Amino acid sequence: MSANYRAVRLEHASRLLNHGPTVLVTSAAAGRRNVMAAAWSMPVEFVPPRVAVVIDKQAFTRELVLAGGAFALCLPGIALAELTYAVGQYSGRTQDKFARHGLHARPGPVLGMPLIESGCAAWLECRLIREPHAEQAYDTCFAEVVAAAADTRIFSDGRWHFDAGNGELQTLHHLGGGQFVRPGGTLVVTAS
Amino acid sequence: MSANYRAVRLEHASRLLNHGPTVLVTSAAAGRRNVMAAAWSMPVEFVPPRVAVVIDKQAFTRELVLAGGAFALCLPGIALAELTYAVGQYSGRTQDKFARHGLHARPGPVLGMPLIESGCAAWLECRLIREPHAEQAYDTCFAEVVAAAADTRIFSDGRWHFDAGNGELQTLHHLGGGQFVRPGGTLVVTAS
Repeated sequence: MSANYRAVRLEHASRLLNHGPTVLVTSAAAGRRNVMAAAWSMPVEFVPPRVAVVIDKQAFTRELVLAGGAFALCLPGIALAELTYAVGQYSGRTQDKFARHGLHARPGPVLGMPLIESGCAAWLECRLIREPHAEQAYDTCFAEVVAAAADTRIFSDGRWHFDAGNGELQTLHHLGGGQFVRPGGTLVVTAS
Repeated sequence: MSANYRAVRLEHASRLLNHGPTVLVTSAAAGRRNVMAAAWSMPVEFVPPRVAVVIDKQAFTRELVLAGGAFALCLPGIALAELTYAVGQYSGRTQDKFARHGLHARPGPVLGMPLIESGCAAWLECRLIREPHAEQAYDTCFAEVVAAAADTRIFSDGRWHFDAGNGELQTLHHLGGGQFVRPGGTLVVTAS
């Protein structure tokens, strides 16, 4: 892992996605790999940690995810906003997006998925749970998180820390049409 | 609708959820009603607009949603942060949360779901699509959005407008454990 990355306990994995960040979905199979942007993902279970993500049936990523039985969700920081938008604008079927954008990927610890750490706040490596009906009817892919890690400058001890010092790593939240909103202040609510 | 609310075109409904806001799930059936908080929801299709939301099988809301075949997603603003956290801390099975918290709800235009507009940025009224396997295995409920509306002070012409003047209506994004992050600055990325 990169110097600033540390493993995230699997029971805390859902917190990486709780607040609705846009993610990069990475995949690899049979010597091919790809990366796409997705605004539509969510946790569905704490333990075992499970997630759902929408991957269009026309997407090259869908083909690789089914073939490889896995994917990773990488959380791009503000600094990768242009990249995040760019990789959503064309297919990786005919060209390697990692090469085109100079993206370094290292293989995930459990499933070997291509993980992007530089410029990203965190990643989740996920094993696909085949659900042909949900995949077909709703483009929704369910998966179990088998490993996760985060940059400790923004997520540690199971918690996000958004502050003035880590702006570049703060998550992106797609509003639509290439507009993103970034995290602002944090509110702490205690039971009354 | 409240004076500041206007209908949102159904093809723009996904944009209300794109950036990952925490929602209030409201439901009603057989003379009972309820409201719960959910951090885990997402769009799954643009047209027809469809969504997925995680509703625990133990929750009273789950019982009402199955009985009524519908629910609404209301997007609480910052001003409702304490309420949002509070309604997630106990069950509505034995008491009416709307009455307890003094929440006014009006019936939705298509399905009669209880809609909370005061303090909320927007709502989506949704017809459940029965998917017993996904409901059982992942607590994931799929639905079609049949009506949507938003407070024009923060969402109009299919777009969010986060600015200094509408802070109280800005969406909440749950980080976990009663911590929420609010929207900060907006980034506009154009294709390079």
